[in-house]
This record gives sequence, structure tokens and C-alpha cells, in this order.
Amino acid sequence: MNVDSKEIDEFLVSLLRKVGKNLREDSIKKMSVATKKNRNDLVTNFDKKTEKFINNEIKQFYPEATIVSEEGYGDLVKDMSGLVFFVDPIDGTMNFVKRGDNFASMIGVYIDGQPLIGAIIDVMDNEIYHGGKEIGLYIDNEKINTPKNLPLVEGLVDVSAPMALSNRFSVQDVIKKSSGFRVYGSAGIIFGHLLTGKEVMYMSYLAPWDLAAGRVMCEAAGLSVVSIDGAPINMLESQVVIVGTQKVVSEALKTLKTR
Amino acid sequence: MNVDSKEIDEFLVSLLRKVGKNLREDSIKKMSVATKKNRNDLVTNFDKKTEKFINNEIKQFYPEATIVSEEGYGDLVKDMSGLVFFVDPIDGTMNFVKRGDNFASMIGVYIDGQPLIGAIIDVMDNEIYHGGKEIGLYIDNEKINTPKNLPLVEGLVDVSAPMALSNRFSVQDVIKKSSGFRVYGSAGIIFGHLLTGKEVMYMSYLAPWDLAAGRVMCEAAGLSVVSIDGAPINMLESQVVIVGTQKVVSEALKTLKTR
Repeated sequence: MNVDSKEIDEFLVSLLRKVGKNLREDSIKKMSVATKKNRNDLVTNFDKKTEKFINNEIKQFYPEATIVSEEGYGDLVKDMSGLVFFVDPIDGTMNFVKRGDNFASMIGVYIDGQPLIGAIIDVMDNEIYHGGKEIGLYIDNEKINTPKNLPLVEGLVDVSAPMALSNRFSVQDVIKKSSGFRVYGSAGIIFGHLLTGKEVMYMSYLAPWDLAAGRVMCEAAGLSVVSIDGAPINMLESQVVIVGTQKVVSEALKTLKTR
Repeated sequence: MNVDSKEIDEFLVSLLRKVGKNLREDSIKKMSVATKKNRNDLVTNFDKKTEKFINNEIKQFYPEATIVSEEGYGDLVKDMSGLVFFVDPIDGTMNFVKRGDNFASMIGVYIDGQPLIGAIIDVMDNEIYHGGKEIGLYIDNEKINTPKNLPLVEGLVDVSAPMALSNRFSVQDVIKKSSGFRVYGSAGIIFGHLLTGKEVMYMSYLAPWDLAAGRVMCEAAGLSVVSIDGAPINMLESQVVIVGTQKVVSEALKTLKTR
């Protein structure tokens, strides 16, 4: 298949810019009038509305693509052949509802199973992280410097709250060897931190749409993205994933108890 | 003693604006050339330099005041009589060093032991939270709406990493009853979240300069600030503190195992 990475990158940036604008304008206004009772429905509606909008735009510009998305407006995808778009309309739902900041919208594009282009918008900051291995990485079209290959002791790590608190896989042994522990509650926001070197590791149980865009960009930035059991990442299943500098992921895999 | 709250508030805002500018310009430049070896010294130097600057300004405008501060340029304070300034030049040191965001500078002012005015600057966002019970609360001179008295199940909680991971006081029982767990790693930044309703509780072991400014403003916002053992807050000692909505603090105190 003949694909133009640069064109897809521009398409994603322009699409997420619109999505971000809608989410900022709409949601804040409507959330404030929501009662406790109907708030969950409202969030689901925002999620669905946003996903429908994104998927329609993708179908219009890339009719040959298949779409994997959270809320059910995607395709039934059985393999990774051809052009596949992964869509997470609102990532960090709790932050969206409770904080009104630190939530994201993400799209990851793969070609025949290979990472091609990813894009993540930090909605409230209106910053878009985008790009891939071929065309490079950008924040709002400004080139990102590749993060340094820091060891665990030199950086902050973010581990999903349930995993960290229950000490699953003895992950607290990894946390203790780091400079400190942070929990931001949105994969998309944390991918931004990893790409800019603000954190050196993220570990969480992630669905395909949680991981897709971040994986494309983190790998392009020279970071490691691995499944906890050392198996190759499977983009059609959920799994526990570690993303971080080469050094940190190697240290983490030695420290974690996975059996 | 005759004190003018509004004048002190204006003094703190103007002082922290300068401190923020210096920290943004200086530190980023110098940190980037620091080697791993001399980095800790460099941070200590920034801390000391900033504290010296703040304390000198206070001494100049409020020569009668006593100063409690972290790095040793303050006074030896034995009681809370008169005008007392608490100074934390850089709060969230690890964020300052590792992330380059989410760190703060804080000043809390007390009169005869009573909270008077607090001010916290989110250095990188250049936002100053300031005010007190008498004059009201502001972000950069814009009035803050009082946060809602939400129950635990309705909000996000931030607990210091060591306390949460080791489940001290069975704090994980509190976390599990909330909407979610976050760790931002800077008391000053988290006080901002509490004041704007983004989080409903913060629990940590805090020194007087960590707590002073936040306590003034959180109490003025109708939030509860309590020592974990139910004793009155002692502003001349470090202690484990819970700050949150009235409902959340009451629920937390019932849930925590403090003996």
C-alpha cells in the first residue's frame, strides 16, 4: 500500500486540533450543569460523540483504512494488515470529569502491523505531540529533542495507581530505585512526559487504543516499549506494558517479578 | 500589632513574581550544563540563593517580622507571637530537577499564631495563588470560587508517595473510597489543585514551610487542615497533615488507622 506519512501526520494534527477545540468548548459548559446522577452518562456521550466525529473524518479521507476504537464505532479488526487507525477519543476520563485538565485524545496509525504515525493532544494545553520514525517527532510542528537514555536512579516513574498500590509484580522495588513516583492518570499525558524526558518510565495495563499513538512516538524517540512478559506487543489485545528509556526498561525487567 | 493584609498580599505577589522570573530564567539555563555529580550542589545553591533573596526582601519591608525558612537564612523562632513569615524557596525539588515543571515557591504569613495571608507561585505556569480569610482568594488577582464540599467518592486524592506505597495508617483504604489516586510531588502545586477543586484531599508529612501558605489559603477556602492525630496544627513542627473538603477529611479520619 502506498501511504504518505507526512500527509497522514498533517491530517491527524488538523483533526485533533478540531477535537480539542470541541472538547474544551462543549464539555466544560455541559459538565458544569450535569448532576451527579447523569454525569457518567454524559461522559459516555462525550466519548461516543467524539469517537464518531473522529472515525467519520478518518473514513472520509482514508476510506481503505480500518479503525480500532473504544466506544464501538470502529471496525471488527482481526489482523493488522493494511492501514489501521487506533482511536482513543478521551483518554484520562477521570481527569476529564474531576479535574478538567490532564486528559488527551489520541490516534495511532499502523501499516501492515508497523508503527507509522502517532498523535496525542493535551486538550486543555492545546498541545499536539505528533510524528513517527520516518518523519520525526514534533510538538505543534516544533521538533522534539530525543530524550536522554537515563538510568532508573536518575528519573521519575509513573505507574498506574492500582498496580503501584497493590505492589503487583513487586513494582515498588522498581519505584524505590527511581528518583520518585508520580501518578498523572492519563496514558496520553504521560506519553508526553516520556517524549520530553520529564519521566523515564510508565507501566500500566493498556488497551490497544491506550497504547497505539504513544507506542509509535516513543519507539521513534528511541524509547523501549515492551510487554511485561517479554513477548512482542500485540496491538489487538490489552496487556501490561512498560515504556521507558532503554536503560530503565532493562533495569525494570530485571527487577520485576513476573511469575 | 497593626497589619495591613492587603498590603502584605500585594507584597507577596510582587515578590513571588520576581522569584518565579528568576527561577525560570536562571535555573533552566544552568541546570542543563550541570553534570550528574554537581547537580545536587547546584540545586542546594538555587534553594539558598532564592531563600536569601526572599528573606532579604521581607526584612527590608517588614523589619519587625520573624522568618521561618528551610535553608537556614531565617530566624530562630520559638513562638508564634507577632508577624511570622514562613518561606519555602523551591517546593517540589525533584520536579524542579527532573521535570522542569510542577514546582513552586511559597510564603505563608501568620499574626500571633493566626493564619493571615498565603501565596504560592506555580513557577513554570507563572500563576500565583494568593490571599486569606480576610481579603479573599485569588489567582493572579482573579477571584477563586470556593471549592465544593465533595465527599471522598466524588474526587481525586493525592497522598505522598512513601505514605501511599507503604500503606501507612491504612491510607490505601481512603484511596480506594475515592475517585482516584494522583501523585504530583509538590505540596505547593497540590494546594493549587485543592483550591480549584481538582483534587479533594492531600495527605503528607509536612514541615512548617511546606504547609504554611497552603494552610492559610485552604482554610480561607473552607477546606479542613488537620493533623492526623486530631491535635491542633503546630506551625513550629513537622507533622502528618490531611487537607481536604470538610466531608473528605471527616471520612478520612474515620477510615485511617492512627494507632
